[in-house]
Formats: sequence, C-alpha cells, structure tokens
Amino acid sequence: MTLSPTRLSTPNRTKHRTATDRAALYEVLDTGLICHLGLVLDGWPVVLPTGYGRDGDTLYLHGSTGARSLRAAAGGVDVCVTVTHVDGIVYARSVNHHSMNYRSAVVHGRARPATGREEKLHGLRVVTEHLAPGSWQHARGVNAKEFAAVAVLALPLHEASVKIRATGPDDDAEDVEANAAWAGVLPVRQVFGSPEPAADLPVPDHVASRAASSR
Amino acid sequence: MTLSPTRLSTPNRTKHRTATDRAALYEVLDTGLICHLGLVLDGWPVVLPTGYGRDGDTLYLHGSTGARSLRAAAGGVDVCVTVTHVDGIVYARSVNHHSMNYRSAVVHGRARPATGREEKLHGLRVVTEHLAPGSWQHARGVNAKEFAAVAVLALPLHEASVKIRATGPDDDAEDVEANAAWAGVLPVRQVFGSPEPAADLPVPDHVASRAASSR
Repeated sequence: MTLSPTRLSTPNRTKHRTATDRAALYEVLDTGLICHLGLVLDGWPVVLPTGYGRDGDTLYLHGSTGARSLRAAAGGVDVCVTVTHVDGIVYARSVNHHSMNYRSAVVHGRARPATGREEKLHGLRVVTEHLAPGSWQHARGVNAKEFAAVAVLALPLHEASVKIRATGPDDDAEDVEANAAWAGVLPVRQVFGSPEPAADLPVPDHVASRAASSR
Repeated sequence: MTLSPTRLSTPNRTKHRTATDRAALYEVLDTGLICHLGLVLDGWPVVLPTGYGRDGDTLYLHGSTGARSLRAAAGGVDVCVTVTHVDGIVYARSVNHHSMNYRSAVVHGRARPATGREEKLHGLRVVTEHLAPGSWQHARGVNAKEFAAVAVLALPLHEASVKIRATGPDDDAEDVEANAAWAGVLPVRQVFGSPEPAADLPVPDHVASRAASSR
C-alpha cells in the first residue's frame, strides 16, 4: 500500500530523501519517544508534544497532554502527527549546504477516540509499553477511576510520508576542490542515563536493560 | 511581558508545570536543534520538522524544509512552532502515573517572510549559527543565486507557553506504601558523537568543542 494516497503527503521536493516503504515508517515511529500532534483549533494551528504507540497500522495517542486538543478530537478530528529523529549536524564547505541528518515520519489522518473498554485498554497498553516497555506488567494496573479519566486517540496509518537524510555534505564541486573549509557530520544521538530510583527497590530488568541499551 | 496574552496559549491544566518567564522560553528555544512548524494548509493541519534560530524576540525559520508550507507562509501565515526536549522517562508505581520529564515551548503567531537583503541575511545567519555555531565565519558564504533561492520566515515571540516537568514520579500514597513496583526516572539526553570528516582537513575548534560539550 502506498504511503501517499493524496497530494497532502506526496513530497514535492528532495525526492531522493523520501522512503516509500512501510517498514521505514514503522522504524521511525517505533524508535521515537514522543510525537508532535498537530490539529486546527478554532482555525488556529496547534502543535503539542504527545506520547504515543503503534500497533500494526494504528497509532494510539495518549490523553494526558493537551486535554483541550484531545477534547476537540473526541468527535473525530483531522490531525497531523510527526515523529522526528535528529541524527547529525551536517557541516558543509558552504553555508548554503549545511543540513541535518534526520529521520521523520509525517502522518495525516482523522483521529477518533478509542471507545469501548477493550479498545481503550488496548490503546493504553500500547502507549504505556511504547513509553516504558515492561511497565504494563510491572506496575499497578489502571483502576476504574483512572480509566474513566484518561483519553486515548486512534489514528489509522493510512497516509504518511517518511524522509531520511543519512549522508555527508552535498557540496558544490568548486567548494570541494577549494578545500578551504572543514566538512563532515557531527553525529547526534539520544541516550539513556543511569536510572534514578525514587525508592530503595532494586532496578528491575526491564529498566536496567533499557538503560544499558544506549551505552 | 506575559507569554500568554490570549487564551490560545493560556494553559488550562497542569498549571504547576507551566513556566511563565521569558528566560525559560529562551532556554528551551536556544538549546533545541529543530522545531516542529505547524500550519493550516487548505484546511488541513501540517507539522514539519524545521531548522530555526532566535535573535531577541524574533524566531527565524529556515526555508530548506517544507518548501510548500513556506510558500503558503510567504504572504504571512498563522503558525504554531513547538520545540520539545525529552529529559527522562518517569516510571511510577502505577501505570497511570507514568510520565515524561520534558521541557517544551509552544509559540503561536503570524510568521512573515524576512524581506530585504539585510533582514534575510541576518535571519540566515541566525539560523545557521543556531544549527552550527561558528560556521557562518568558517564556511563559504552565501552567493547571489543561493540567496535568491532560500526562504527565511520571521516569527515574533509574542505569545508562547513553556512547560517543564523535571521531577520524580507523582504516585498515590497507597502505591508508595505498598512498595510493590519500582519507581524512578530514566534520564534521556541528546549527545554529540565524534565528528565524521568528509575530507582530510583537521576538525576545527568550533566543531571539536561542540562535540566535546556533551561528553
């Protein structure tokens, strides 16, 4: 299935940076920590950082941030959800060719509230396990009051565009030849630090292994 | 000056996480690498990762990403620009209190194209020096053709909201007492790796010192 069924997500430039397969979309989404949720509120654009998680071709968004925006969405609302990884600063021989290495996914669609106990609970689990893998089993589960207060949105992964830049500087031949300025990539990575316990229980495996994963 | 002159940016929940001083806004903006630019295009929300830089109370946005959105903006367009830092995953005793530590700035306003040679050049310098401090002096400058092809948007920092969460889990007393699940924070940081040169010039100070800054 194409990721760009309509012109909204059909890239109109830098086509060489566009990934069109669904595996690339999944990879960008699954390795992010937050998304930026965009919607139109009273005619104004609003962009909020939000927790999320993916199951198959559905993206679930958490209701704990931006309650107003999620209330607006409760009737079903058009959204744009973007996940971006910054992978490097690209220093070029010319100011003009300075750039970034990055991976981004831009998803367009109509989000609707997850309804019914089963779907809402499933969405909550997907979002929780994305944020903190292992926590759904480890932590105390959601009680009735908490369950009623939380909102989960479901967004189909029907229309999306993925862009990836992962190379060195793209300098003009004359600038390369002149060899007057340094060029290269300064890698950027997101890493975990050492867990900071709130109490004196030992750090469980699902947290310790995650902390170790980026060392 | 207040950061929230209208209800668009007046937080309606989690007030304890809201920073209201301008210094906090500057700090969040100045330490980010990319922003997420939101606008309304033919009635649809669009959110694109974009380079930027700040000078005083003006945010400059770079035109190399999202050319279509920036063309739409050329006549002056309402935008929402959000910069988010993820600082930690908050593991709580209950699933419900899982959270993130983060710093985010959400700026609302009408962006207009930087016009005139002086302002556009200034905006380009601000964006370049934000992305790659020192490069404006080090690299080959912008020539006439490049200057004509690039777009720079200027957005006044008139209306913005800043949210900061930087604490441990906020568990219920019963869950703390039960002491059944681990709770704490897994710190998240963005770090630079070792510079990857594209040619055999020595790594200049402005790049080497930046790489060393996050070690």
